[in-house]
Amino acid sequence: MISYRLEATSGHARAGTIVTRRGDVPTPAFMPVGTQGSVKALSAQEVAATGARLQIMNTYHLWLRPGPERVAELGGLHEFCRWPYAIATDSGGFQAFSLAERTKLSEDGFEFASHLDGTRLKLTPEEAMRIQGLLGADIAMPLDVCPSGSASPAEVVAAVERTTRWAERCLVARSPGQALFGIIQGGANVELRLAHAETLGRLPFQGLALGGFSVGEPPALMHRALGEIGHRLDPNRPRYLMGVGTPEDLLIAVGAGIDLFDCVMPTRNARNGQAFTWSGKLTIKNARYRDDPLPLDPECRCSACRGGYSRAYLRHLFVAGEILVLRLLSEHNLTLYARLLEQARAAVVAGRYADFAAERLAVFRNLADTGDSG
Amino acid sequence: MISYRLEATSGHARAGTIVTRRGDVPTPAFMPVGTQGSVKALSAQEVAATGARLQIMNTYHLWLRPGPERVAELGGLHEFCRWPYAIATDSGGFQAFSLAERTKLSEDGFEFASHLDGTRLKLTPEEAMRIQGLLGADIAMPLDVCPSGSASPAEVVAAVERTTRWAERCLVARSPGQALFGIIQGGANVELRLAHAETLGRLPFQGLALGGFSVGEPPALMHRALGEIGHRLDPNRPRYLMGVGTPEDLLIAVGAGIDLFDCVMPTRNARNGQAFTWSGKLTIKNARYRDDPLPLDPECRCSACRGGYSRAYLRHLFVAGEILVLRLLSEHNLTLYARLLEQARAAVVAGRYADFAAERLAVFRNLADTGDSG
Repeated sequence: MISYRLEATSGHARAGTIVTRRGDVPTPAFMPVGTQGSVKALSAQEVAATGARLQIMNTYHLWLRPGPERVAELGGLHEFCRWPYAIATDSGGFQAFSLAERTKLSEDGFEFASHLDGTRLKLTPEEAMRIQGLLGADIAMPLDVCPSGSASPAEVVAAVERTTRWAERCLVARSPGQALFGIIQGGANVELRLAHAETLGRLPFQGLALGGFSVGEPPALMHRALGEIGHRLDPNRPRYLMGVGTPEDLLIAVGAGIDLFDCVMPTRNARNGQAFTWSGKLTIKNARYRDDPLPLDPECRCSACRGGYSRAYLRHLFVAGEILVLRLLSEHNLTLYARLLEQARAAVVAGRYADFAAERLAVFRNLADTGDSG
Repeated sequence: MISYRLEATSGHARAGTIVTRRGDVPTPAFMPVGTQGSVKALSAQEVAATGARLQIMNTYHLWLRPGPERVAELGGLHEFCRWPYAIATDSGGFQAFSLAERTKLSEDGFEFASHLDGTRLKLTPEEAMRIQGLLGADIAMPLDVCPSGSASPAEVVAAVERTTRWAERCLVARSPGQALFGIIQGGANVELRLAHAETLGRLPFQGLALGGFSVGEPPALMHRALGEIGHRLDPNRPRYLMGVGTPEDLLIAVGAGIDLFDCVMPTRNARNGQAFTWSGKLTIKNARYRDDPLPLDPECRCSACRGGYSRAYLRHLFVAGEILVLRLLSEHNLTLYARLLEQARAAVVAGRYADFAAERLAVFRNLADTGDSG
């Protein structure tokens, strides 16, 4: 089980600690995404060296391969993946909806065909809890219904109601000792979100998550909704914004009172050759870096930057298709994300979060312009 | 410049040291192949951690991209690639012949079209020396003519004679301070090889290399030829067998008096999921490893094996297409190669190389059976 300790606030922004039996997680915190039990291109030690102390892994993928029974027999995810710190797992519902084929949604759950071999599978709230219990994460997520950004108001309401019923079933079916967060839906409808937050807040979840953001809506809409919702979530529990986002998104969400994030962006963009730096984005394959002897970011502490790898060498590796560069850029981006939230935490403790966020946003605004908010 | 110190012999097997201004290289030694300035999937620190102290890089590839002038401006290969130890470069001739398109061979050199963009290029002995001088390797190789395994006797003789003339041109054109090895050709014709070794041995090369082995001939033919030739090469210079080979090949060649090797096999096979272990080969994607909690090789000191990664996890990563496993298997295989030659060296010093090689060969024979001797 986990607990949350609130330590300081600055406006709505919070500094706290999630206490787990696998160590403390200072918040706000970003969770690197280890989809299939590995943050792509990185070893567990390298992920830890970026500063991360909580990793999120993917129930859908690990269910299909290698299978939760196998993971359990091999000692659970921590032992299997050699990650000694805390792990969260999502419920698998999002992938059952977005990645699997011929998905049918009913009150019972999702029925779908595996994207790997077409096997017909069924994911119910109870099955999601059983799988996550076997995987052995510190924090599990309940099965929820996540409507798309273009869903009708009626569809959004129906999704909220079913998500509540499933949340209650997950609480009954949860594994002993495993923390469970409630997932708040409601799209961009702030009233609906707040009502759902109140409903779920009455249930014994260890944290509250905002699902269904960053599903195609304009970033400004999400930012506005977060400003209305974030600080109204129960202050005694960690608040998790699922699947978000850019450095700008993180700064705005922390200002709205959010504590926890996950997103594939820093690692996925790295593999596409994009580095986030303290002075803006850097697309390593650009010809302008051909002869550039500087590191990616002279202000960065990551092993790529401290190791003396020049932009010219990194560009060469990227253009030549060398695997090493995928790792170096991934380490760099995750380090920047972790450092950004460490700095945010320090600013909260110092009581100057608004100033800090305004300074950083001025730099990162051009990054958000990529429109790449996966 | 480099020097070679012979320290012990056991039969024809030798223990020695190649002294370079970037550190000593105890021999026999295996050179990991950093084709494009990076040993595929590994960082320079990881290559060093396997035990390697001499890396070979590829002149043809680095000539085309990023270009030797650029590498020179960025401080040379050591600085560019963050590899502080010794570097050898090949001449580029082999790739101009095997990889480039529409290659024409004349007394002057190779003319060919770049495999990247079709640009017409010309590689002469002088150009090979100029490029390698700019790259700044500690050990350069002269341009040579490497006949295929199916070449006629007359073609082999012509290749030997042209290789000699080119070797003399390379000695004239070499860069000051850069060591240069002579390359002995002659196919499987032992008399021709010995005559060529004598011719080149009279020239002021810092080492002698055997080129044109492992080009499609049966391994037993190479092993027999090495037994005739290896120990007859000048004992005062390091002896380098180019592009070879399996663990079995290495053991036999060391027994014949060879000091230095390079081959893509340990890293290429790793990327195809094959691990070399002290008890035979291991194909990680085999279903038998699905539930196997053991490391790749309990006897191994590499970071994959000491890091507690189970075969089950490595198999999962390989089947799931995760990049991390390519690195872990590459580290493992290069560590085994380095360790094998460290053990060979210790056996020479102890005066029991024949016994050591016989013991190891009994284990590795099944590896050589893969027929995968690239």
